[in-house]
Amino acid sequence: LSELSQNPKENGMHSIRIIGLDADDTLWHNENIFEQAHIRYRRLLSEYHDAQTLDEALLKTEKKNLRLYGYGIKGFMLSAIETAISLSGGRMRTKEIQAILDMGKEMLDHPVELLDGVAETISTLAESHRLILITKGDLKDQQSKLAKSGLSQAFSQVEVVTEKNPDAYAKIFQRHEIVPAEFLMVGNSIKSDILPVLSLGGAGVHIPYHLQWVEDCVEETPEPSERFMVLDSLQKLPAILKK
Amino acid sequence: LSELSQNPKENGMHSIRIIGLDADDTLWHNENIFEQAHIRYRRLLSEYHDAQTLDEALLKTEKKNLRLYGYGIKGFMLSAIETAISLSGGRMRTKEIQAILDMGKEMLDHPVELLDGVAETISTLAESHRLILITKGDLKDQQSKLAKSGLSQAFSQVEVVTEKNPDAYAKIFQRHEIVPAEFLMVGNSIKSDILPVLSLGGAGVHIPYHLQWVEDCVEETPEPSERFMVLDSLQKLPAILKK
Repeated sequence: LSELSQNPKENGMHSIRIIGLDADDTLWHNENIFEQAHIRYRRLLSEYHDAQTLDEALLKTEKKNLRLYGYGIKGFMLSAIETAISLSGGRMRTKEIQAILDMGKEMLDHPVELLDGVAETISTLAESHRLILITKGDLKDQQSKLAKSGLSQAFSQVEVVTEKNPDAYAKIFQRHEIVPAEFLMVGNSIKSDILPVLSLGGAGVHIPYHLQWVEDCVEETPEPSERFMVLDSLQKLPAILKK
Repeated sequence: LSELSQNPKENGMHSIRIIGLDADDTLWHNENIFEQAHIRYRRLLSEYHDAQTLDEALLKTEKKNLRLYGYGIKGFMLSAIETAISLSGGRMRTKEIQAILDMGKEMLDHPVELLDGVAETISTLAESHRLILITKGDLKDQQSKLAKSGLSQAFSQVEVVTEKNPDAYAKIFQRHEIVPAEFLMVGNSIKSDILPVLSLGGAGVHIPYHLQWVEDCVEETPEPSERFMVLDSLQKLPAILKK
């Protein structure tokens, strides 16, 4: 980090009153649950196909179905069943489809595992800033995870959106009377959490997670500026914001 | 309808400033899409089981999975696949599971068909009242239907909730600074649209739809009062509210 970004008076973060926080892979682990599911899926279908063929076919099915299914585990389950049937050329047995259903239910029922230091950091941030949870995905699933996380009291609002684009953030700004110059978005996705908010005049803090869904990857991270920085942990945010 | 309820000065509707409207089977047809799907499902599995056995087994699976899947078409698809596998004792072919996937995608892609007179009535109501769409179900699916309906401009807010209980309505009242005495909820479900709102001091107008998911049925409709009435069509609401 440059010295500039460490000093809130100069780094453009001193004006921040409201912090938007992404949830999956920013507050709690999520992509590792999908990664584990992919491993089980490859094993389940290993007699029919190699891992790469499976991964590519599943991703292609997921992208094709995104318009209808949106993000989330239920859509993943349906795409995984469709891919399995299609790739096996009809040789698939029902017990393998049942195994995909069981796997998806375990994913939905998975305990919420917070990233290191998140509970304490969110509690600290809530003392000085208004916090809004902004997450994309399945409403039922995200609300269930928030309830299990034990963090819900810290957030003054919760916004579950189907897509994190400039239009979605603009609507959130309007609904909560948010001035973009006072808004900071924190998350693990450059594409979903950072770029749309910077484009609207807000600030962004990128906290990379070690796994990312390939469709959420962007090639370039913006240059650090007074409105954008990269941190390796949420635990470092309170110090950055402290005046 | 009693004379009392026809006169807004006396029927308790004169204080209404904000109208909450349910979406599925209140503004647009929905349950008929599920009914068609059930008919196709019975036909698809007719060589294994009779219609009643299928219907009962599917409902049981749906109820069991509701905690994990919530409401909506994707959860219905997953429960339909699970039921088919379970009932067939493993004899199920993959082409039949593919047929369930295809059926679900058609449901998700189904055009939105407004009930009679809804477009004009919503437009009339929006001139005199603040309108909020309050619907339960899948976020992606409900937003997609609202966009396709052509009605979105009429609503000042859209609330998609996972369950329509008193707690969910209380949160909506708080978020939008709604005084219950000024709030009227309009919908086809006594259980989801009327009872929780009456319990919070709001008013309710029940507009029955000719089909209802058995789990949304309640045995008793409240007695008509100054805070509750039954109408056979949304088109009659503006006259009821007119002073």
